[in-house]
This record gives sequence, structure tokens and C-alpha cells, in this order.
Amino acid sequence: MSKGERTRGAILDHALDLASVVGLEGLSIGALASHSGLSKSGLFAHFGSKEALQLATLKAASAAFIDQVMAPARSKPRGLERLRAMFENWLGWTERNQGGCLFVTAAVELDDRDGPAREFLVGQQRSWLEALARQARYAAAGGELRADLDPEQFAFELYGLYLGYHNARRLQRDPDALRRARAAFDTLVQNYR
Amino acid sequence: MSKGERTRGAILDHALDLASVVGLEGLSIGALASHSGLSKSGLFAHFGSKEALQLATLKAASAAFIDQVMAPARSKPRGLERLRAMFENWLGWTERNQGGCLFVTAAVELDDRDGPAREFLVGQQRSWLEALARQARYAAAGGELRADLDPEQFAFELYGLYLGYHNARRLQRDPDALRRARAAFDTLVQNYR
Repeated sequence: MSKGERTRGAILDHALDLASVVGLEGLSIGALASHSGLSKSGLFAHFGSKEALQLATLKAASAAFIDQVMAPARSKPRGLERLRAMFENWLGWTERNQGGCLFVTAAVELDDRDGPAREFLVGQQRSWLEALARQARYAAAGGELRADLDPEQFAFELYGLYLGYHNARRLQRDPDALRRARAAFDTLVQNYR
Repeated sequence: MSKGERTRGAILDHALDLASVVGLEGLSIGALASHSGLSKSGLFAHFGSKEALQLATLKAASAAFIDQVMAPARSKPRGLERLRAMFENWLGWTERNQGGCLFVTAAVELDDRDGPAREFLVGQQRSWLEALARQARYAAAGGELRADLDPEQFAFELYGLYLGYHNARRLQRDPDALRRARAAFDTLVQNYR
């Protein structure tokens, strides 16, 4: 990794943290300069525009999500065990940045805004839904879940469960959020056995 | 209703629609003036500050939610039937404003921002969770759901289900979102029978 790449990576760590709090729209080059202590001209040299910075930040979040949520789960056997590991890592991911999961914030900001950032986010979310559905399919094939399970429906329900957790944890600051999310996961699995 | 109250109501309709798209933070007096065709000085006379406008918009959304989601369900018998009506009205509410449910947008924007708007939103959400839990409790008492049901857990899961629907409908623009949400509701109920 070159010095330029390391600098860019460090900037994007700041950008991720800031965007999780102020949103993708609040992630201006000026705001990032104050947050990171870097000069605005230096940031412009790296990203060129606010839109490019937003997209780069989403891509950095996506790479971090793969590293921290998806990759560690691959050590588990396919099916229910890997699904549970993905879910647990996902819950942990909520704490990764100061303001919670950037994808949750960005989803609400970008739902009415067509453009490259929205397209990227939709694709990222779809990949994750497919990854969840794939493990549900393995679990059904292996007899851990019902053979007639609809894996996309399962993934839809699991996604909602995560969003409910994120809301309870972040907005409600509910001390029971984690316990409730795990209980809901168990209920979901139980229901599709 | 006085002329002043009618004007204020009409402004808040615009404000709700605009905030659902650009977020509560994007709801400045200037943006609302362009959106509604009213003068900035007229809007200042009504609301005084951006913060006051944001809070008034959340309160207007809350009154509309009671009128359109909660009140019509009261004609149904307590328990599962009313719960289903509340859920159906809630799904319909997602289409009420151009940019989806303002509470979903505001929840993500306000989770890190202490102040009157956040306090109001947390209270509004808590009341709704309690209203859902109350009907689940009636359903359990009447034998429609399991007697040992945890009504707060049920409400937590139903809230997540709605958030999953909102995301699928608004970000993914998934044509199956409504069908999936209804199937998930049936599964949830089935599971707690």
C-alpha cells in the first residue's frame, strides 16, 4: 500500500465515522476537514467533489462490512451456523461507527435521490440480502430449516429484524435491544424449522 | 378553526411532504418557502426558527398518524383484528407523503441529536410501540395469541417488520414489498399463536 493509499484510507475512516452521525448529505468536504484536521484543498485533491467523497465513503463502508461482518463468518459451516455468525457480526457492526450503521442512514437519505450513490447502496444491500438468503437456502437443503422455505422472504424478515434492532439501540437507546434482537432471531429460526 | 390555524395547517402539510423527501435537517425555512410558494418572512412569523418548524412538523405528522393509522382501527374489536387493522393502516401511511414515513427518516437523523425534536420522536415512537403491545396483550388474554406472549417483544418484532417493509418499498423499490410484509405479519402472528 502506497503512502497515498494509506492517507486515503485514513481519511475515509474519518469520513465513515462522520457520515454515520451527520448523514451522507452532511458529509461535505468542509465538514470532513474540520472533523479530520486535514486541509480542504488536500481533501479536494483526493476526492474532487462532495458526490465523489460520498460514493468513496459508501465503498469504504462496504469493504469494511465485508471484512468485519461477512468474512469472519466464512469460518463457520454453511447454513444456520454461518447465518447466526453473520447476524451476530452484523449486530456488532452497529457499534463500529460513532453514529451507527452508515447503510441505515444512507438508505433513508438516498431513497428519493437517484444517482451513483443510490445505485451503489441498492446493489450493496441486494448482495447482502442474497448472501443471507443463500445461507437460508443451505440451511433448508441441510434440513436445519424447512425444505419449503422461501429464502428471499427469510432474508426480508431478517433485514427488518436488524433495522428494528438499529432503531431500538440508536434512537430509543433501549438497554434491552440486543437481548430482544437475539430473541427475535431465535423466534424467526424456530418458526422456519 | 381560525384563518391563522388553517394557514398553519396548510403550511405544515407542505412541510411534512418536503421533510419526508429531504429529511428534517433539510427542512429549512428557505427550502419550505420555495416548496410552498410562501414568503420566508411569513413562515418566520408562523414558526420563528428552523428548530420550531421541525418540531411543529413532527407534531403535525404525529396528529396525522393518529387520524389515519390509529383512529380508524378503533372500530375493530380489540386484539388481533385491531392489530391487523393498525398494521394495514401503517403500511398505507408509508404512501401518505411523497418521501415515505417521516418518522423513519427522522429516527435516523435524530438518533445522535439531543433536543426537543428527538425527545418528541422518542415519545411518539414509544406510544406507538405501547399501542401495539396493548393489542397483543388483549389478543393473548382472549386466546388469539399465546398466553405467555411477551407483548413488548411482539411490538419490537412488528416494528422491525415495518422498517423492513419501508426499506424494501422505498430504497429497493421492490414490487413484492407489500406482499412480503403481509406474509411476514402472518408468520409473526402464526408463530405467537
